[in-house]
Amino acid sequence: MDDALVLQLEVDRLNADYAAALDERRFDEWPLFFVEDGRYTVQARENFDRGLPLALIALESRGMMKDRVYGITQTIYHAPYYTRHVVSPARILAPADGDGGLVRAQANYAVFRTRPGDASEVYNVGRYVDEIVRTAEGLKFASRLCVYDSEMILNSLIYPV
Amino acid sequence: MDDALVLQLEVDRLNADYAAALDERRFDEWPLFFVEDGRYTVQARENFDRGLPLALIALESRGMMKDRVYGITQTIYHAPYYTRHVVSPARILAPADGDGGLVRAQANYAVFRTRPGDASEVYNVGRYVDEIVRTAEGLKFASRLCVYDSEMILNSLIYPV
Amino acid sequence: MDDALVLQLEVDRLNADYAAALDERRFDEWPLFFVEDGRYTVQARENFDRGLPLALIALESRGMMKDRVYGITQTIYHAPYYTRHVVSPARILAPADGDGGLVRAQANYAVFRTRPGDASEVYNVGRYVDEIVRTAEGLKFASRLCVYDSEMILNSLIYPV
Repeated sequence: MDDALVLQLEVDRLNADYAAALDERRFDEWPLFFVEDGRYTVQARENFDRGLPLALIALESRGMMKDRVYGITQTIYHAPYYTRHVVSPARILAPADGDGGLVRAQANYAVFRTRPGDASEVYNVGRYVDEIVRTAEGLKFASRLCVYDSEMILNSLIYPV
Repeated sequence: MDDALVLQLEVDRLNADYAAALDERRFDEWPLFFVEDGRYTVQARENFDRGLPLALIALESRGMMKDRVYGITQTIYHAPYYTRHVVSPARILAPADGDGGLVRAQANYAVFRTRPGDASEVYNVGRYVDEIVRTAEGLKFASRLCVYDSEMILNSLIYPV
Repeated sequence: MDDALVLQLEVDRLNADYAAALDERRFDEWPLFFVEDGRYTVQARENFDRGLPLALIALESRGMMKDRVYGITQTIYHAPYYTRHVVSPARILAPADGDGGLVRAQANYAVFRTRPGDASEVYNVGRYVDEIVRTAEGLKFASRLCVYDSEMILNSLIYPV
């Protein structure tokens, strides 16, 4: 049982560290939460539920993520905003069976957005659908799929969810 | 101490599984989170705080819950919406003392609603006041009381909280 | 590892108990979550990020907190509202190394406000930046700093966050 306890807390901690990096705008650290060929996907629930492939964002390596970070911090013109992630404790669906084992986990999230001088508002809510592996540097995402409920995205989604 | 740790994680997992079943619209599974004669109550905080009995929804068995599920999925005419539950780690108030022991737990929740083509919004926030028992099939609710702050409920509350 | 597990759950429990005391309006208990010379600070993220000292609220002892409680419950004229805190699992940044050791922890929070007869709304979102010590009466805050994103605060912030 202890192994399951430890894994639960490790996954919740991974989610909290991930949220903190984004909310504190340490975007350069964001790709490091993934393995080298990790996938990051943001998909509407409507498409996910029907098994349709269309996704708002689909990145397939740390390199693509770094490119995205360069885009959002250096080149995209957009109004600034803060994000704040509140994430529920995760559901571990398939624990690792061995060092190379894959952990499947899901967690509900709410992201709040605050624009300068404005009140905070609900920005994006949904579910993380994750594949996590254990590496020498701790747990990393092999795949993080953000399935969002919010069909109308306020303005546009600039920063990672 | 280990028993308390395990119980904390089991209760958080129960809350996460419950939320996932509702948010993924697996409504048929909802009554199975309760014991056969389990109670599900949704009550305004104003009434709860004053000890008044009036509740928005009061179901007293799995049978009544199945009936409710039939209603919401087959007969009630209503505009569709998605729900997303974000739940804080629970407070275990009285741990089980033996196999038949009752666990009293509470957790704060926020439910977000998303209507097709619309932005997500705060739908219902409040507190779960739970009585949980251990069964052969794992933890089940003997009673789940949803005490909601939101005096004005957007449109009407169709799906379980 | 077990010590880290226990500490994680203790901190999450402290956060849950703190939230429950405020949301249930047991304001008299609020100063007791702090040590005698504990600090409670509410600061805009903009100032925190720049290292500026200006804070919306800065209390430096239980006595000042009691005074604040007296103010909000007895003297300040304001429209009543309910609060509901939803808090993510905490990040323990520096565990205690000994009985007198300081625990540094952070957690993201969302506070929802409900005014009588109205829908619930996002009130204040941000991050708790905490210094926690172990006392004979359990974990207490040596310092709780609430760094809020929300630059425009709806009406005014009356109750503690």
